[in-house]
Amino acid sequence: MAGNTYGTIFKLSTFGESHGKAIGGVIDGCPAGIELDLNAIQRDLDRRKPGQSAIVTQRKEPDEVEFFSGIFEGKTTGTPIGFAIHNTNQKSNDYSHIKDSYRPSHADYVYDEKYGIRDYRGGGRSSARETASRVVAGAIAKQFLAPIEINAYVSAVGHIRLNTDPSKIDLSLIENNPVRCPDPVMAAEMEDYIKQIRKEGDTIGGVVSCIIKNVPVGLGEPVFDKLHAELGKAMLSINAVKGFEYGSGFEGTQMKGSAHNDLFNSDGTTKTNRSGGIQGGITNGMDIYFRVAFKPVATIMQNQETINSSGETVAMQGKGRHDPCVVPRAVPIVEAMAALVLADFQLLKRTNKI
Amino acid sequence: MAGNTYGTIFKLSTFGESHGKAIGGVIDGCPAGIELDLNAIQRDLDRRKPGQSAIVTQRKEPDEVEFFSGIFEGKTTGTPIGFAIHNTNQKSNDYSHIKDSYRPSHADYVYDEKYGIRDYRGGGRSSARETASRVVAGAIAKQFLAPIEINAYVSAVGHIRLNTDPSKIDLSLIENNPVRCPDPVMAAEMEDYIKQIRKEGDTIGGVVSCIIKNVPVGLGEPVFDKLHAELGKAMLSINAVKGFEYGSGFEGTQMKGSAHNDLFNSDGTTKTNRSGGIQGGITNGMDIYFRVAFKPVATIMQNQETINSSGETVAMQGKGRHDPCVVPRAVPIVEAMAALVLADFQLLKRTNKI
Amino acid sequence: MAGNTYGTIFKLSTFGESHGKAIGGVIDGCPAGIELDLNAIQRDLDRRKPGQSAIVTQRKEPDEVEFFSGIFEGKTTGTPIGFAIHNTNQKSNDYSHIKDSYRPSHADYVYDEKYGIRDYRGGGRSSARETASRVVAGAIAKQFLAPIEINAYVSAVGHIRLNTDPSKIDLSLIENNPVRCPDPVMAAEMEDYIKQIRKEGDTIGGVVSCIIKNVPVGLGEPVFDKLHAELGKAMLSINAVKGFEYGSGFEGTQMKGSAHNDLFNSDGTTKTNRSGGIQGGITNGMDIYFRVAFKPVATIMQNQETINSSGETVAMQGKGRHDPCVVPRAVPIVEAMAALVLADFQLLKRTNKI
Amino acid sequence: MAGNTYGTIFKLSTFGESHGKAIGGVIDGCPAGIELDLNAIQRDLDRRKPGQSAIVTQRKEPDEVEFFSGIFEGKTTGTPIGFAIHNTNQKSNDYSHIKDSYRPSHADYVYDEKYGIRDYRGGGRSSARETASRVVAGAIAKQFLAPIEINAYVSAVGHIRLNTDPSKIDLSLIENNPVRCPDPVMAAEMEDYIKQIRKEGDTIGGVVSCIIKNVPVGLGEPVFDKLHAELGKAMLSINAVKGFEYGSGFEGTQMKGSAHNDLFNSDGTTKTNRSGGIQGGITNGMDIYFRVAFKPVATIMQNQETINSSGETVAMQGKGRHDPCVVPRAVPIVEAMAALVLADFQLLKRTNKI
Repeated sequence: MAGNTYGTIFKLSTFGESHGKAIGGVIDGCPAGIELDLNAIQRDLDRRKPGQSAIVTQRKEPDEVEFFSGIFEGKTTGTPIGFAIHNTNQKSNDYSHIKDSYRPSHADYVYDEKYGIRDYRGGGRSSARETASRVVAGAIAKQFLAPIEINAYVSAVGHIRLNTDPSKIDLSLIENNPVRCPDPVMAAEMEDYIKQIRKEGDTIGGVVSCIIKNVPVGLGEPVFDKLHAELGKAMLSINAVKGFEYGSGFEGTQMKGSAHNDLFNSDGTTKTNRSGGIQGGITNGMDIYFRVAFKPVATIMQNQETINSSGETVAMQGKGRHDPCVVPRAVPIVEAMAALVLADFQLLKRTNKI
Repeated sequence: MAGNTYGTIFKLSTFGESHGKAIGGVIDGCPAGIELDLNAIQRDLDRRKPGQSAIVTQRKEPDEVEFFSGIFEGKTTGTPIGFAIHNTNQKSNDYSHIKDSYRPSHADYVYDEKYGIRDYRGGGRSSARETASRVVAGAIAKQFLAPIEINAYVSAVGHIRLNTDPSKIDLSLIENNPVRCPDPVMAAEMEDYIKQIRKEGDTIGGVVSCIIKNVPVGLGEPVFDKLHAELGKAMLSINAVKGFEYGSGFEGTQMKGSAHNDLFNSDGTTKTNRSGGIQGGITNGMDIYFRVAFKPVATIMQNQETINSSGETVAMQGKGRHDPCVVPRAVPIVEAMAALVLADFQLLKRTNKI
Repeated sequence: MAGNTYGTIFKLSTFGESHGKAIGGVIDGCPAGIELDLNAIQRDLDRRKPGQSAIVTQRKEPDEVEFFSGIFEGKTTGTPIGFAIHNTNQKSNDYSHIKDSYRPSHADYVYDEKYGIRDYRGGGRSSARETASRVVAGAIAKQFLAPIEINAYVSAVGHIRLNTDPSKIDLSLIENNPVRCPDPVMAAEMEDYIKQIRKEGDTIGGVVSCIIKNVPVGLGEPVFDKLHAELGKAMLSINAVKGFEYGSGFEGTQMKGSAHNDLFNSDGTTKTNRSGGIQGGITNGMDIYFRVAFKPVATIMQNQETINSSGETVAMQGKGRHDPCVVPRAVPIVEAMAALVLADFQLLKRTNKI
Repeated sequence: MAGNTYGTIFKLSTFGESHGKAIGGVIDGCPAGIELDLNAIQRDLDRRKPGQSAIVTQRKEPDEVEFFSGIFEGKTTGTPIGFAIHNTNQKSNDYSHIKDSYRPSHADYVYDEKYGIRDYRGGGRSSARETASRVVAGAIAKQFLAPIEINAYVSAVGHIRLNTDPSKIDLSLIENNPVRCPDPVMAAEMEDYIKQIRKEGDTIGGVVSCIIKNVPVGLGEPVFDKLHAELGKAMLSINAVKGFEYGSGFEGTQMKGSAHNDLFNSDGTTKTNRSGGIQGGITNGMDIYFRVAFKPVATIMQNQETINSSGETVAMQGKGRHDPCVVPRAVPIVEAMAALVLADFQLLKRTNKI
């Protein structure tokens, strides 16, 4: 398996290079009868698209999705949903400088080694442009999942960290600022920091957090396909992600069991939620929350030394239109992947009992 | 899919409850012609088994594997390898107290909700005993993978953290102490801490780190089945795991791109390795390293308040023979899952080019 | 995938060679809450086992199944069901004559070429003994599927063919004779013919037909996983099968559309059933019926010329205890595979709509 | 799984309704480095397309494929190949008569029952138009498979049957006539018969045979994924197929083992080929041959009685532009599916040994 399909029942297969004709995909296994709000899909694409604010890449790509199939008279029909987002703004000449050279900490070198050939224009298949297809499928999954609510937000840009307990976050504030941080003061601080980083021609990492509410009990298929294991895989499959933790996460490793255990209320809910809504790989009905680590974007506007395909040392000049910090645009991608995971497990859950 | 199969080509399907007749599995897709060292398999099982040292659970289980098929005259034949580990020490009466009660932060409650029925003895399918089957399969995968070397070790117990750069670790020291920490001084400190925790009737979390050497370039199948995404899923599928990070991980989120990028040497190796041996989801030939967060074991030797299946509040008395800290025994499990991931991608790599 | 797993949700993975320690498997995805009748499982195994009548191989194998997991207090728990059938009557020395020689029309040669190694005892993995594992899983699937009824029978032995319309067959007569042909007169004729063939030291082919009743509308997942496509694959995966047809089958190719079309009754049933209960790959609620062609067993009690692994011509002496005609014992295998297919699609159907 | 993906490594996922915007698909797992002959792909599409001769439907559809990705500078890159065939000639009003009525022996009724909604225009997803996507993928698979040669031809139209031994067929004659029968005399007879059937406003069934040459030893993954089992599934997944047989097929059931066995030559080839090139589910290097049964097309130009979605009896008037006999256009579809099967197993074979 070349790895371009995600899911067991609700499945997304994607295709497309950043500077080819189009990117897109096929969603198979989407249940019939969902009344689709196409505007909501476009809204999520707009949250991901370049050029949306002053702190993201200034490339202009409309990112409009064209649906080919699987929708009839406004509803899903149960047949595969084929779609494409046409690439309209392909300044391929921007990339002639990487035709024979390998950008540091990019996938150029490994693609060449693995496949013996590489569409070098803009990163080709390894470009984060591919995630637009995930956003389309995720937006459909969200509509299937309602009333489950999936909200991601930026909880760190570089060293600036929002440490608020996930249960205390006011999710309605997320979209009020271009950083997508629900704390307005911290958002402003992050925004300033990103602008400063961009001025330096540099980039900075960050963290996206996600909270999922109204989750039914029973999602997840142990032992390998535990809910958090699939969530982890889904998040780690997003470009630039270096880590995933849920519930108490890495900090929980320093706790004692007596302090970490979530005691039950009589209705099966728990008094605390260090489990992050998942026990033994299965949802327990409490909110799911997790954090996703993004490294700084590798493309910087500074000159670096690197090698070409002959192994010779060459100078790599920083140019193009890139994000100084990827997390604001990553928010809808994290949500989309979470939605794909949950939709799949929601359907699998139907098969658990006689 | 009920989720008990791992892998695409090199596939492990496991079965078994902690107090049923046996646990075991089927390994399908293991290539023919591997001369198996059965002792090496048992050695890994012994590293995982209870009762091996003073700081782990004192249950006595021999954990001997019986192979049913797929091996002929000492070699794998390419046909499925069926195996079982018989459960010999099933003190089922130890568990009558949880027949109708839900242990806090265990999977008892969610299994009952999901399936409407639960083998309550010792956690049943949700018991970490299941991981012994993974160790068997992983030990076979290791032999297929040679000369790739996979070594895990304990890098934190509670707040006691080994911060040594993975590349500086002396891997030969890992098995010299019961904690499996390669730093002898810190190992002693960790051991003392675990003993103290046990005396308190409590448990403590920890971190297992893993280093993989001699990795070929080209393992990993983007965009969804990136190497680190599958590694993350594999690790998160292990009982009690709450987080996964590779390369620069969560700390890398605070770095600038100019400091984070790994510059190339002329042979394609990199001067630094913040990428953790993986770029764009594909190995670049540098060492892979990652960290796995384990929460404190939920079973404590203290009384806790909880609920029964009728939703009534009941007292839960701590008893049984359990681990005060799971990470020393988790080391071979982490290695096993890493081996399963790499074996699968090693085989998939053969299909990449004409 | 080495191909030893069948199914998407209700999945069977099998292992085992005819003369290894055991054969068996893992059933994953079996829904929780099925009250299992273990006798019914053994009954199907007994219908398949050697030595059951005068017209089948006289090998003695008890074929008793041992369940390791997934069943608790008489019910399925939703966790994987591991099981084994231990090999007790392994006269391995019977097979020394094929250690280095390739039996004509057997898999000996291709296994050696494909894997470079082969467990030559009794055909190893390519032995039809493997199908006992399918019968176990199929018997469980049948219990899940009730009130769907799956009945197979022998409709041809060599040139002796039962041409009765499937809808006219009295299924209660099938088990009244060792041939498993529901027409007593024809059954006697077939039995005599098989005995004569055996006297000649020869073997003969045959056809197994299958009728499935009480089928719900809506099973099947086009476009590739049409119900009849999976049924066909399942049947063709049984040893010695050379063909599959359903509904009007090959004869239907000679018909005109005006004569072939099944006209509707007002309740959605059809006046005729040339479609065999399946339209566009999806069940329409009418009976499913299909036919499976079995070639004559390749092992004959006559001397044949063949080659050894060095390519030298050698004489192959017929010996051992083999079936003169495989179809009477194939009846429960056909039913088992049909049950696995339907169980999987029954579960998948639950995911079709919101 | 909604069933719109075929293959394990070389995977095709298709989408599209006959009267939606487009049909198409994603090919994932196609190895990198194949120099694609795009004309050869179009040639196969032209062999399948409507309007190509006097004996097929006179609809006009150009069936031109647009590739979106996965091809760079004329070669496959190893990344997914997305493609679409735009629907240009959608006379949707032709189909208003089936909006609320169920055509006999079509999938209209079962789609409505299964999904609760149906794109009724021209059969929607159940239309054979979908097979054009398979032809695209199959044509690429053929180029990967060279020098393996896959040739299908019409061997029966109604009662007119070509009984020539597959090994005696002159494959170069297939494309010389619109029927695609390699026997010119019989081809003329078939052509006349089809024209007569069309005049009657009726349709007729037929058989497509296929021969595969230059097959390597070792393709096929027992026990479930035997080569012929997957071939069978692939063929049965094509619209209107009712049966599949390979090698001696149904006729072989009447033979004795002594007459059926294929004796070896010293080089591992066999003196006869009743096995059809496959033993134990694995290719033995001899030619593969098989036969596929197609029922008569259900759409006839005669009035039929049927029911509407309220269960009322209604008259269904025959109209539209349909094939009187589907087999001439099915030839490239059979080849395409065979190519997809072989490509997948060719890649899987690389993983069999250390």
